[in-house]
Amino acid sequence: MATEPRLHVDTDLKAGGEIALEKDQAHYLRNVMRLGHGATLKLFNGRDGEWRAAIDHVSKSRVDVALLDQVRAQAEEPDLWLLFAPIKGKRVDTIAEKAGELGASEIRPVLTERTVVGRVNTERLAANAREAAEQCERLTLPTVHEPQKLETVIAAWPEDRQLLFADERANAAPIAEALAQCCPGGRWAVLIGPEGGFSPSEQQMIRALPQSVPVSLGPRLLRADTAAFAALALWQAHLGDWRNGDGGFE
Amino acid sequence: MATEPRLHVDTDLKAGGEIALEKDQAHYLRNVMRLGHGATLKLFNGRDGEWRAAIDHVSKSRVDVALLDQVRAQAEEPDLWLLFAPIKGKRVDTIAEKAGELGASEIRPVLTERTVVGRVNTERLAANAREAAEQCERLTLPTVHEPQKLETVIAAWPEDRQLLFADERANAAPIAEALAQCCPGGRWAVLIGPEGGFSPSEQQMIRALPQSVPVSLGPRLLRADTAAFAALALWQAHLGDWRNGDGGFE
Repeated sequence: MATEPRLHVDTDLKAGGEIALEKDQAHYLRNVMRLGHGATLKLFNGRDGEWRAAIDHVSKSRVDVALLDQVRAQAEEPDLWLLFAPIKGKRVDTIAEKAGELGASEIRPVLTERTVVGRVNTERLAANAREAAEQCERLTLPTVHEPQKLETVIAAWPEDRQLLFADERANAAPIAEALAQCCPGGRWAVLIGPEGGFSPSEQQMIRALPQSVPVSLGPRLLRADTAAFAALALWQAHLGDWRNGDGGFE
Repeated sequence: MATEPRLHVDTDLKAGGEIALEKDQAHYLRNVMRLGHGATLKLFNGRDGEWRAAIDHVSKSRVDVALLDQVRAQAEEPDLWLLFAPIKGKRVDTIAEKAGELGASEIRPVLTERTVVGRVNTERLAANAREAAEQCERLTLPTVHEPQKLETVIAAWPEDRQLLFADERANAAPIAEALAQCCPGGRWAVLIGPEGGFSPSEQQMIRALPQSVPVSLGPRLLRADTAAFAALALWQAHLGDWRNGDGGFE
């Protein structure tokens, strides 16, 4: 199935516009997709909706496109942060990719007492999230933040943002039951702990936040990436933009 | 955090039992975990619950363990098949791993019109699912089947098994809404299509099954692996063993 390429750009998108694509994108269209003059693609920038464009100049060093028409208007998207303790290897790439697909608005690595990985390649996280956003037809990119200490994040927690967190203690409410009692939309975050779990004092600190909604993700011990995918999907299904069969978000 | 190793064995587990572990497992305990005489571990076989055991013989060629006591009794687990069209590369390994963690009872690759990958390494799928089951404290392993054609699977579909399928058509019900109308427990399957989606005739064939429950997974175009994780998690949260905060399953 030949599908039109879909790329994120920083430039404004408007009728009659001309864009010189970034080097990587030019390389991708010319050498990987082997597209030439007249081929069409889709562009979005997170502000001006989605536009169809046509390649009108290809050279060894650049690809220019002309904007044709707006295909979709910009629409509001769920305001859902993903906070997670960085983990090793490819799993962290997959977390960024799935956060892109599952509609997280911000990706925020948090350092916890039991976090083993100290350095986080945020550029790589952003690249994975961006590729996922391009492929899944999202109209925005998730913003990727530099890692912060969990206690710093909790100390400055916004009053108007609820915090869904996977709690390993036995007395947390099952996630579907907890979410069924919340109002759709609003500002939210999902918080996933490190592989060894939060420390007791961290658990206490998180639970003490009035905005925190502790939930259980069942009887099996989930890896951090699995817990993140599950919590994001459950949130979207109950409170986010999976609630409408036609895909709209209020 | 030093955690006790947890391994699946085929042997019966009973008080006073002695087990010579498989070669790979012996290697893992001796050379990777560097355990010696007296070290304890946990074993399960899918029938006799979970047992604590102690290493009582280590040599270059083998590790023997003595069964100490039963830690958990065998319990019923959700009857949830995962049917998916095989995809390329590491993503298929991750699907098997997450199916293990998210409590799928059977993993069944299905070949569809738009399936690009013909060969499936079912041994590798089983190894990934097994490792996940060992780590996540499940009491069973998912059974991995050889690939079958989708039309063969649908033609022989069991009368008493419902089929949750991610339908890209606009008029499918949002997944949380659809699941809220179903009774918990029972026999179920989740069916995920290939990256290019089901063909129109396949969609018609699946929809024509009286057991089929078409659902929407939101406005973004999810990759097959993401759709599988989301559908399994939503099913467990609504109808499976995530419904009870204490982890039990009725």
